[in-house]
Amino acid sequence: MEKQFVVGVDVGGQTTKLGVVDARGIVLAQTVIRSDVFGSDAAAFITALADAIKNIIREAGKEGQIRGIGVGAPNGNHYTGSIEFAPNLAWAANTAVPLSSMLQEKTGIPVSVTNDANAAAVGEMTYGIARGMKNFIMITLGTGVGSGIIINGELVYGHDGFAGELGHVTAIRHNGRVCGCGKQGCLEAYCSAIGVAKTARDWLEMSSVDSVLRNVDNITSKDVYDAAKVGDSLAKRVLEYTGDLLGRTFADFVAFSAPEAIVLFGGLARAKEFLYEPIMKSMNDNLLQIWKGKVKILFSELKASDAAILGASSLAWEL
Amino acid sequence: MEKQFVVGVDVGGQTTKLGVVDARGIVLAQTVIRSDVFGSDAAAFITALADAIKNIIREAGKEGQIRGIGVGAPNGNHYTGSIEFAPNLAWAANTAVPLSSMLQEKTGIPVSVTNDANAAAVGEMTYGIARGMKNFIMITLGTGVGSGIIINGELVYGHDGFAGELGHVTAIRHNGRVCGCGKQGCLEAYCSAIGVAKTARDWLEMSSVDSVLRNVDNITSKDVYDAAKVGDSLAKRVLEYTGDLLGRTFADFVAFSAPEAIVLFGGLARAKEFLYEPIMKSMNDNLLQIWKGKVKILFSELKASDAAILGASSLAWEL
Repeated sequence: MEKQFVVGVDVGGQTTKLGVVDARGIVLAQTVIRSDVFGSDAAAFITALADAIKNIIREAGKEGQIRGIGVGAPNGNHYTGSIEFAPNLAWAANTAVPLSSMLQEKTGIPVSVTNDANAAAVGEMTYGIARGMKNFIMITLGTGVGSGIIINGELVYGHDGFAGELGHVTAIRHNGRVCGCGKQGCLEAYCSAIGVAKTARDWLEMSSVDSVLRNVDNITSKDVYDAAKVGDSLAKRVLEYTGDLLGRTFADFVAFSAPEAIVLFGGLARAKEFLYEPIMKSMNDNLLQIWKGKVKILFSELKASDAAILGASSLAWEL
Repeated sequence: MEKQFVVGVDVGGQTTKLGVVDARGIVLAQTVIRSDVFGSDAAAFITALADAIKNIIREAGKEGQIRGIGVGAPNGNHYTGSIEFAPNLAWAANTAVPLSSMLQEKTGIPVSVTNDANAAAVGEMTYGIARGMKNFIMITLGTGVGSGIIINGELVYGHDGFAGELGHVTAIRHNGRVCGCGKQGCLEAYCSAIGVAKTARDWLEMSSVDSVLRNVDNITSKDVYDAAKVGDSLAKRVLEYTGDLLGRTFADFVAFSAPEAIVLFGGLARAKEFLYEPIMKSMNDNLLQIWKGKVKILFSELKASDAAILGASSLAWEL
């Protein structure tokens, strides 16, 4: 009997989500384990993950019917099957963990690994808003800014498996903010959830303009979005500025791979109503004539709770 | 008998070079026709080109043995086979000229078209310094700055056939020079031959520093290179600044496609001795840790007179 189901695993800094998925993209069963309680013991994490995978397959009633396991993880390298020097995972922060071979050994099922944004891109192409597209760029606007690039219907891995780090192109060339990566002016330093919160805090400090955000301790990007929704003009300008920077930078991405669309996903992408217009305007202002008005900006419509698992699972169909 | 030879055609603003090439990359016979004497009459140019092709095949003694004709041309679109709105070609400036079908009809030989920088990239991969590489980026530093991107051993064309316009990413985000394309701050506005000459002229005007370039009318990038070779410090700093901008921008390209190398070609690439160090330094300063010290900067070693024909001809092997 042909194996008709796959498992998707989304490894995050705090939790790892996993589920059994069918060919139509229905998540038949899912669960969550902690990622952050294993210290530097990668083997302990992988044992816990393998157990959770076996349990969830049993729960879904699909034992012996799993074609493969797709894993999306920070710094997941498709070529090596490892998680390599991922700062947010204590057990993979200072080393390369051969996740693919270790997990395959414990489950007896083939494993494919890639980074989380790449998994999201394949998920959108397989089940989401990019269905049928051969050339698009996925941008994940979360705690950081990630990316997955699809050219000719395939993920771009590059020479070493690490292609698509578009959060770390330079959005501000002169006196840019220091990014978590150590560079200055990265897109991520401005357009991640953390970057947006920092913009709001900086602007509140630099001016005395009235804003509901003055009553908020420890402002997050969600606070900025909520404030914008109730008409706060500073919050709206913060999102407009964020969209402007995204749009300019997207124009450079278009010059590279001439995509049909750029697809946005992640917490910050929920602020679509405030981001869409400034992104479109500044992207088109910065595009060559041949592309003006021709590149779509799309927002993921996958249910957030399913999207990460679906994205990772879609890798497993190729196994 | 299998057809063992190809024709390469490099369409430029003033002249069009063409030649018959064998499988080892030897140019058996070549010639040049004018591109700029046909006004807006594209059909007249294509008739002249077809005649020149037939003559050169006869001269090489390879009638009936030509597998295909590869054409590299400004704004040449591989998908449509047309030259589309190429400002430097009067007969294609305001229209799309279906070069591929017109030339095929007049010669009876299949034709493949792409832009000139893409042709150069395939040429380097087939016959040049990028032999054996699956992931690299070709940057042509000529009158303008062009690019051809190779991923997984294939040219990137994108959704519309126009991918790889890296001369028009933004090198200077704030108050950048106006580029020929109408945008501000493009890489081409600084790092093309014209851009380098402008930098030299601007710096001479802004300062009173001694320089042999003060005795030169209508400074060109070649004058700057010649001055640097005799130790002129302003000229050396102009090339250092150019290399610095190239290196920073290359770091963004690496974040996109993680290439093994960036290959430089064109008149300005001859200034290797002054460009290499600043490019390497600023590229590595701006790369993520995973790529520092790992990406090669290579300079084309193909004979300039052959390179354009070889590049274009290499497209024809796939026909």
